[in-house]
Amino acid sequence: MSLLSRSSVFNFAKRGFASSSKIPDLTKDRYPVKRGNYAIINDQDVAKFESILEKHRVITGEETQGYNIDWIGSVRGSSNVVLKPKTTEEVSEILKYCNSRKIAVVPQGGNTGLVGGSVPVFDEVVISMSLMNQIERIDEYSGIVRCQSGVVLEALEANVREKNLCVPLDLGAKGSCHIGGNVSTNAGGLRLIRYGNLHGSVLGVEAVLANGQIMNLMSNFKKDNTGFHLKHLFIGSEGSLGIVTKLAIHCPTAPQAVNLAFVGVENYQNVLDTFLLAKKELGEILSSVEMIDELSLGCSTTMCNIQSPLQTYPFYMIFETSGSNNAHDEEKLTNFLNNAMEKSLVADGVVTNESAKMKTIWEMRERIAESLLKMGYCFKYDISLPLSHFYEIVPVLRERVGDLAKIVCGYGHVGDSNLHLNVLCDSFNKEIYSLVEPFVFEYTSKLNGSVSAEHGIGFHKPKYLHFSKSKEAIDMMRQLKTLMDPNEILNPYKVLPPLNK
Amino acid sequence: MSLLSRSSVFNFAKRGFASSSKIPDLTKDRYPVKRGNYAIINDQDVAKFESILEKHRVITGEETQGYNIDWIGSVRGSSNVVLKPKTTEEVSEILKYCNSRKIAVVPQGGNTGLVGGSVPVFDEVVISMSLMNQIERIDEYSGIVRCQSGVVLEALEANVREKNLCVPLDLGAKGSCHIGGNVSTNAGGLRLIRYGNLHGSVLGVEAVLANGQIMNLMSNFKKDNTGFHLKHLFIGSEGSLGIVTKLAIHCPTAPQAVNLAFVGVENYQNVLDTFLLAKKELGEILSSVEMIDELSLGCSTTMCNIQSPLQTYPFYMIFETSGSNNAHDEEKLTNFLNNAMEKSLVADGVVTNESAKMKTIWEMRERIAESLLKMGYCFKYDISLPLSHFYEIVPVLRERVGDLAKIVCGYGHVGDSNLHLNVLCDSFNKEIYSLVEPFVFEYTSKLNGSVSAEHGIGFHKPKYLHFSKSKEAIDMMRQLKTLMDPNEILNPYKVLPPLNK
Repeated sequence: MSLLSRSSVFNFAKRGFASSSKIPDLTKDRYPVKRGNYAIINDQDVAKFESILEKHRVITGEETQGYNIDWIGSVRGSSNVVLKPKTTEEVSEILKYCNSRKIAVVPQGGNTGLVGGSVPVFDEVVISMSLMNQIERIDEYSGIVRCQSGVVLEALEANVREKNLCVPLDLGAKGSCHIGGNVSTNAGGLRLIRYGNLHGSVLGVEAVLANGQIMNLMSNFKKDNTGFHLKHLFIGSEGSLGIVTKLAIHCPTAPQAVNLAFVGVENYQNVLDTFLLAKKELGEILSSVEMIDELSLGCSTTMCNIQSPLQTYPFYMIFETSGSNNAHDEEKLTNFLNNAMEKSLVADGVVTNESAKMKTIWEMRERIAESLLKMGYCFKYDISLPLSHFYEIVPVLRERVGDLAKIVCGYGHVGDSNLHLNVLCDSFNKEIYSLVEPFVFEYTSKLNGSVSAEHGIGFHKPKYLHFSKSKEAIDMMRQLKTLMDPNEILNPYKVLPPLNK
Repeated sequence: MSLLSRSSVFNFAKRGFASSSKIPDLTKDRYPVKRGNYAIINDQDVAKFESILEKHRVITGEETQGYNIDWIGSVRGSSNVVLKPKTTEEVSEILKYCNSRKIAVVPQGGNTGLVGGSVPVFDEVVISMSLMNQIERIDEYSGIVRCQSGVVLEALEANVREKNLCVPLDLGAKGSCHIGGNVSTNAGGLRLIRYGNLHGSVLGVEAVLANGQIMNLMSNFKKDNTGFHLKHLFIGSEGSLGIVTKLAIHCPTAPQAVNLAFVGVENYQNVLDTFLLAKKELGEILSSVEMIDELSLGCSTTMCNIQSPLQTYPFYMIFETSGSNNAHDEEKLTNFLNNAMEKSLVADGVVTNESAKMKTIWEMRERIAESLLKMGYCFKYDISLPLSHFYEIVPVLRERVGDLAKIVCGYGHVGDSNLHLNVLCDSFNKEIYSLVEPFVFEYTSKLNGSVSAEHGIGFHKPKYLHFSKSKEAIDMMRQLKTLMDPNEILNPYKVLPPLNK
């Protein structure tokens, strides 16, 4: 495994950064995609929407632009209508009408997705869930929380904290993303290693089908084995089988103490062995295990003016513990680090539970994506790989794209085998595009990896789905789509590959 | 809330016990059920099965009896053919043939189910998974384990322990039940409060559809968002959408230390408040929270000759901790108990980490079901209820059945809102049956509870499914059944109510 020389990390400033505020090309111009046979919205349709919602909750014209562009500026749709329902019944009425007219729709949460799944491809009506933000109930005994799907993750967290609970999900976009969007995309994030995935935590959903039918699959219980577990059809299917309007989620006890270790590591094998040691010694208090390579850390520290507490290393790791007794947790974490140093797994490290210092460490990790975006156009990949081959794709790809890219770097949730791989260039560039895709997916597939770990398939990856899923599985997905959304009005051009591929 | 007088617990012996070894009536005689329009097995069919499998893996005649009767002796089928495949391909060949001939089949794991789901109702061919017991891979870094579905839970646990991992599931039947059966029924068990449910832990399945098609939905990753999450269709659908042949499951780090507290509690409100205190003070090390009422404890201690370390109380609770540092865990547990005693939540208690003593405590809990069975015929209910109303159904039902029942008692996973409610009588008795059903389900439904928490629907509960699921949800289940098993050969008469109901 080769690495760029250490000094490269300091060269960012010299290479110059492209502006990220440029409005991207229209999706239909940038990508080879053909509009489906859907109705084109007319004044009567708008009038109908205004009759279902209040007039000011039907947005048209200029104001719709923000809803047409994704966060990373990779796609841009041309929808002229954004609807803002407040109730499940309104969503039901909207879909019933759209289905009868064969009007395509795209449900949109916080629009923080990274695969172009949350904005229109053409002129689909945007159904923004932002006003469906009511928290219905927080039960401190059982830890079960019921809310509408448009509640912002950070707001949900703040509310459940008052009852000594925490949301079993945390990710960089928490200030914008909706819990319903998280559920619809089966978001993973930073603490999956501790609290598990949303298929485990979400106990019930209410979803509206394409024909407007409301499916009440809510449950207040962690144990509820009554028939087929239909709710999972809506968790992670990215709004293409129904629109999630409400959910029940189990929130564990909030930790009383959080500690963070930030360490420098000389090589990838040591990353792996340090992780194994942490699993053993930190066991139940381990709440995050992140890896950041040298170039990735260079991006966030440089672009966001953050002073790293460590000197330069090829790899960095973050270990977070969350527990109920700070003295116990500190003792475990210190013992773990001492052992890791003694075994020469870790070259240097800092431990802290001061919130300002923890914030700085997390910013170095969480602001990498944003920093890369500021620096130009970024091809982003989110893959799961066997830990034994986890990092080797980074140097391989670096060599493959050579000087065409400004930076090729990798970071991510190593504790969950999830790598975020980034190829940064000045602007969208077809030559690099053809060098990295489908190469990254083929490489991943050869290692039986997943071509989408936590970001989903969205608009960008349907044609690569077959690298991770068998023909039989894709056929069954299609059968389910036909069963549940025969007119294919829900989030078209996403998730499933077109039939002729 | 009223309770029977304390002395009642000592009256078991005087009441006399029915024999549990009696062969139950045939299901078709005891229950109003009509055979479906399936083929009747002939010699040619048997010859075909013998050509797919080795001859000695096709069981006919007398030896099939054990496969026809469920563990609690509530149902008895009349199948004359039991098949024992060793590979997925053999399962595929069997189903392909059965589907073409319209021969009904019932998949069978360890046959430890409690809702009559794992044995034939009439003459369905039994597909026993007992020889599909190979463990394919245990990855100590990621904790991911791949195995065939017929591995006995206890054997799987023993194997993963060698790599410092543990199976995220534990239940009384662990010595017999199969991990594939656990997955197919979405088994819950004793440690769900710590490790979550199988929808979260199971990362992939391989299943064979009714037509013999092999669905490879295996994954080696905790994060894998590639299309609809189809595997959940097979988790908890009780073999009625496909037969699970292989699975990948995430196994967490094995605990280094286990401690147990067994406490006596004077009333249900104190049970609840003690639980809340435990959640706060034991947080991440809490691995089990059980409640046992006085009569339930009396059953196991009397029938299994166990000496309880505590005197008699209306309620008992078990708190188990599992952690990575025994000194820390002991300190937390002792602090918790001292606080609970100071607040007068707990009347008396013992703490131990000696394995013999822990075994005794767990036996008092785990052998209740077996003890009840030894004492006569037991109507068993497995319901989830809001914690605020968790126990009140027990005295209500006790009053309702009066002297007709020998014992009405409740115990269960209070930490997961899951009550095991039992009505014991000498033998199956239609008068009691009509008093308890549908009463229990109606009562549960009024509280928005679940009519099956962890045992599933099986043969006994399809007609009660509507108490927990909406018409729309049941309709969609039926549509999925039709899509995936149009001839309805997979585990018929189970899970879904008949169409004319």
